[in-house]
Amino acid sequence: MAHINLENDLPGIRGLMAYSPETEKPLNLLAETLLRDDDNTLSRGDRELIGTYVSYLNDCFFCQNVHGALAGHYMGCNIEEIDAIKQDFTSTEISPKMKALLAIAARVQIGGKAVTEEQIEAAREEGATDKEIHDTVLIAASFCMFNRYVDGLATWAPQDRQFYVNRAPQRAEDGYISSVFK
Amino acid sequence: MAHINLENDLPGIRGLMAYSPETEKPLNLLAETLLRDDDNTLSRGDRELIGTYVSYLNDCFFCQNVHGALAGHYMGCNIEEIDAIKQDFTSTEISPKMKALLAIAARVQIGGKAVTEEQIEAAREEGATDKEIHDTVLIAASFCMFNRYVDGLATWAPQDRQFYVNRAPQRAEDGYISSVFK
Repeated sequence: MAHINLENDLPGIRGLMAYSPETEKPLNLLAETLLRDDDNTLSRGDRELIGTYVSYLNDCFFCQNVHGALAGHYMGCNIEEIDAIKQDFTSTEISPKMKALLAIAARVQIGGKAVTEEQIEAAREEGATDKEIHDTVLIAASFCMFNRYVDGLATWAPQDRQFYVNRAPQRAEDGYISSVFK
Repeated sequence: MAHINLENDLPGIRGLMAYSPETEKPLNLLAETLLRDDDNTLSRGDRELIGTYVSYLNDCFFCQNVHGALAGHYMGCNIEEIDAIKQDFTSTEISPKMKALLAIAARVQIGGKAVTEEQIEAAREEGATDKEIHDTVLIAASFCMFNRYVDGLATWAPQDRQFYVNRAPQRAEDGYISSVFK
């Protein structure tokens, strides 16, 4: 049960967003811009994967399953393949650039100052642009917020992971702007 | 020097926001709503103090000085009094309710799951409402994002703390919506 009375039975961040519509708007606009904006050389799958990985590092069940299912949807991967990336991305078949960006995201999860110049250089050597590095840091930072919001208020989450997989295609179609009411 | 070429010389998050105006909009709208919205029983000073304290725990020089100066401005405190709260709020003259809320914010900084039911109950016993608890968690979570964004990209910050104190009255007047260009 959530720490506060949300006056609804929606799971995870959806219950919080329905409770607080005035903060829902900027939060969903941020997610929509960071994760879905078409003017971006990182694919939607790449960006969902960064969010998934940070949510895994923050041990947020709801977020890592919502966004892991979306990453899998965009990347054409099943849940086991996404799990393998979360557990050890270095030994998977994702691109060297994505490996370098996930390494940066992992440091952002620890704290901003944990990101090193060497990691930035390594990402550049794999072809990452300034904007891709910027977006990786901000996506990782934003999930450090979303994860804390979801777990800091002790929201509930469906435990059947297939629930998230089943919802992903519709969420991919709808985007985040309307996430409260879908 | 920042990890990426921001194409401007603005400090801290202002340089990042000028570099990325599409994400600036939801970030500033979030700050404006959380920290300044008049429909809130936590004062602007209370809310800036929560952000300041989390920024201090995250060791983010820019954010703790910007928001510490604003907290001081609203609360009628000088920089030394704000520093004393950051260093040990339990021994200061702030209200028991704010002490309970800062204790929750400190756990959010560690991670969402670190917040305990006992802390929520303690805040309620000091008169905190569900909305105040909600806002405390989301303000703390959002500063875990802002701090990581600012330091994860290695932005520069003016080192003279009086700089932030001098700017606070104008920022308090302008709000966050226009923070890039002021």
